[in-house]
Amino acid sequence: MISIAILGFGNIGSGVADVLANNEEKISKIIGDEIRIKYVLDKRDLSDTPYADRAVTDIDVIVNDPDVTVVCEMMGGTQPAYDYSIALLKAGKSVVTSNKEVVARMGDLLLATAREHGVHYLYEASVGGGIPILHALDDSLKSCAISRIDGILNGTTNYILTRMHDCNASFESALSEARKLGYAEANPTADISGADACRKIMILAAVAWGKLVSAEDVPCEGITAITSEDSTFAVSCGGALKLIASAVKTASGIMMTVSPAVVLADNPLYSAKGVFNAVKVRAGDLGDVMFYGMGAGKLPTASAVVSDIIAAINRSDSNGYTFFLPNDESLLSPEETPDAFCLLVQADADILYERIPSLALLNSKDGVHSILCEDMSKKTIYEAFDGLAVLKCLRAIV
Amino acid sequence: MISIAILGFGNIGSGVADVLANNEEKISKIIGDEIRIKYVLDKRDLSDTPYADRAVTDIDVIVNDPDVTVVCEMMGGTQPAYDYSIALLKAGKSVVTSNKEVVARMGDLLLATAREHGVHYLYEASVGGGIPILHALDDSLKSCAISRIDGILNGTTNYILTRMHDCNASFESALSEARKLGYAEANPTADISGADACRKIMILAAVAWGKLVSAEDVPCEGITAITSEDSTFAVSCGGALKLIASAVKTASGIMMTVSPAVVLADNPLYSAKGVFNAVKVRAGDLGDVMFYGMGAGKLPTASAVVSDIIAAINRSDSNGYTFFLPNDESLLSPEETPDAFCLLVQADADILYERIPSLALLNSKDGVHSILCEDMSKKTIYEAFDGLAVLKCLRAIV
Repeated sequence: MISIAILGFGNIGSGVADVLANNEEKISKIIGDEIRIKYVLDKRDLSDTPYADRAVTDIDVIVNDPDVTVVCEMMGGTQPAYDYSIALLKAGKSVVTSNKEVVARMGDLLLATAREHGVHYLYEASVGGGIPILHALDDSLKSCAISRIDGILNGTTNYILTRMHDCNASFESALSEARKLGYAEANPTADISGADACRKIMILAAVAWGKLVSAEDVPCEGITAITSEDSTFAVSCGGALKLIASAVKTASGIMMTVSPAVVLADNPLYSAKGVFNAVKVRAGDLGDVMFYGMGAGKLPTASAVVSDIIAAINRSDSNGYTFFLPNDESLLSPEETPDAFCLLVQADADILYERIPSLALLNSKDGVHSILCEDMSKKTIYEAFDGLAVLKCLRAIV
Repeated sequence: MISIAILGFGNIGSGVADVLANNEEKISKIIGDEIRIKYVLDKRDLSDTPYADRAVTDIDVIVNDPDVTVVCEMMGGTQPAYDYSIALLKAGKSVVTSNKEVVARMGDLLLATAREHGVHYLYEASVGGGIPILHALDDSLKSCAISRIDGILNGTTNYILTRMHDCNASFESALSEARKLGYAEANPTADISGADACRKIMILAAVAWGKLVSAEDVPCEGITAITSEDSTFAVSCGGALKLIASAVKTASGIMMTVSPAVVLADNPLYSAKGVFNAVKVRAGDLGDVMFYGMGAGKLPTASAVVSDIIAAINRSDSNGYTFFLPNDESLLSPEETPDAFCLLVQADADILYERIPSLALLNSKDGVHSILCEDMSKKTIYEAFDGLAVLKCLRAIV
């Protein structure tokens, strides 16, 4: 009998209990033992749940119980989640979490503590909900020279942008629809500002390259300023507007950014619509791989937590799972890093080709051209187009 | 120093040597040791390769060398690959392979031998080239109640169908183009007959549910009879024609089939074009997840082999990795299993709705209708449409 505890019995926390119950037989077979939820810690009254007899409010009860080997931290926010997790790791318990905030801010400290005490700190559910992307980065892709990660990592913004694309809706009406359907919270700031996607790409980059940067250093542009004209522009380019979080490794360092981008229709990320998430990884010899799935939701996210519980129990390798390595690569400016961009420019087409011979003309109407420039930095493009009427410039995912 | 051997030094075998060399530093960090290729076994003369001094032709040299712990079987075909693998496993060596033929036909025996001797038999590279789908099925998705797998598992046929879709090419001209580009072999029978995709879905189903069926029992229809009219019909349905290998688990058993199908544009499999492969898994509480990547090619496939070499070295869990469990679930007929179908029917629309009220009308032209029927078996649909002119009926992936 393996005893676990759940900290925070909200949507995901109660989902973990459900997934453990739904798949009890399979899980027992995999780990060769049974899992018992011994404690549920929550400030709320749990007396009307099946866990009333296991409800506690004092973390020390769990910290001091040698029976408990794995604890699920589903509290959200950095405190007290961080302090609790550190205390549990120091007491020799593995911690699994869906809390992207604490991982993106203090993951390096939590992982160092876990290693020091020979236990696991696992956080698959913090990125991409049910998509097993961290397991893959840490397992099959671990030996690959990863050069780029692009992700649609926030379901709320992807739903809004999909509605704007499909129905020509305004940002405001798409947001209000997302709220009605429960896809957007009452206060959607973390989603629509890009902050949520930013935390997730920070975690992905840290797992891929060992560099945990500070959120303040990642240029992050949300979708609040997006208009239906932007969405129409993306269509004129042969693509769709999506909020893309990117991390690119070059010879000189790592570039990270979150911004709306035109995803061209031939890119598999184009197919991630509505609340779905997708992560595309350029993985050296392996080529491009993409992982697609439910980026949020009670049971998908809880399933990712449960896969981490199983890993915490079954994995004995001292290599651990998904930890950041010390790394001092410099962070590059997205303005100066070569990438692809879609622009809307009002000018004579001949002049455009004169300035940037390698550009691709995607669409033209009344002397206004939708064009694609690849392998150039935004700064270089603006310098080349100096004096021309550049009406729009968005990153392109080709 | 960990000594390995490579059996078969063709495209994939030499690719494994390349990937090991390209990623030497990362791999050494992961396994905490260095990997040395001690032997390369091939019938061909290897004197002009860097492995001339390690070339052997006698398998016993490898079987009897206690130094060698992992052997890569890249020979293809069932014999002597099977006999060699059994001898190596019995000698206490882990075997990793890209050989889908031997896995699909004798995987159960090879896995039983591996377990008996406390070593690994791993075959990630046998399905979906570089896509880490078996690792995921065996790891993150292992506790999930998987109910359905649909895959685009053959790059040659997907390339041909993509060209037919994009350029309205005929089957013959698309095939000849694929040959020119090296995407189709001189004898493409295994690809275009669906036999290759069939082996791969057999392996996926075996890993998911423990049922290794006989290839003869899987209804398998290739793309040789596909015309540009079929491709146009798929477009009229709002989709694209793709060769889909499916495995579906119902309360009464498992249904497996390989056939051309209409993939509707909203399904993420729609985005897998050209030589790319994709596998979509309906994974219980986790929801739908899809894995996308290079389904073939020297380095992508070799990268998958290398991830298995690392797993064979690092994983000590007696649970093993991806093995078939004895399972006696019955195999269901695709004709009688409820699924989705796109039909082209010449009849009055009112009569169609009368016969099947739940159908969706996708397109109509001159009294000929493209329709979608869901959750019905082919048999039931044909019975309902008895006496009507059903011009086409293809599986639909919605």
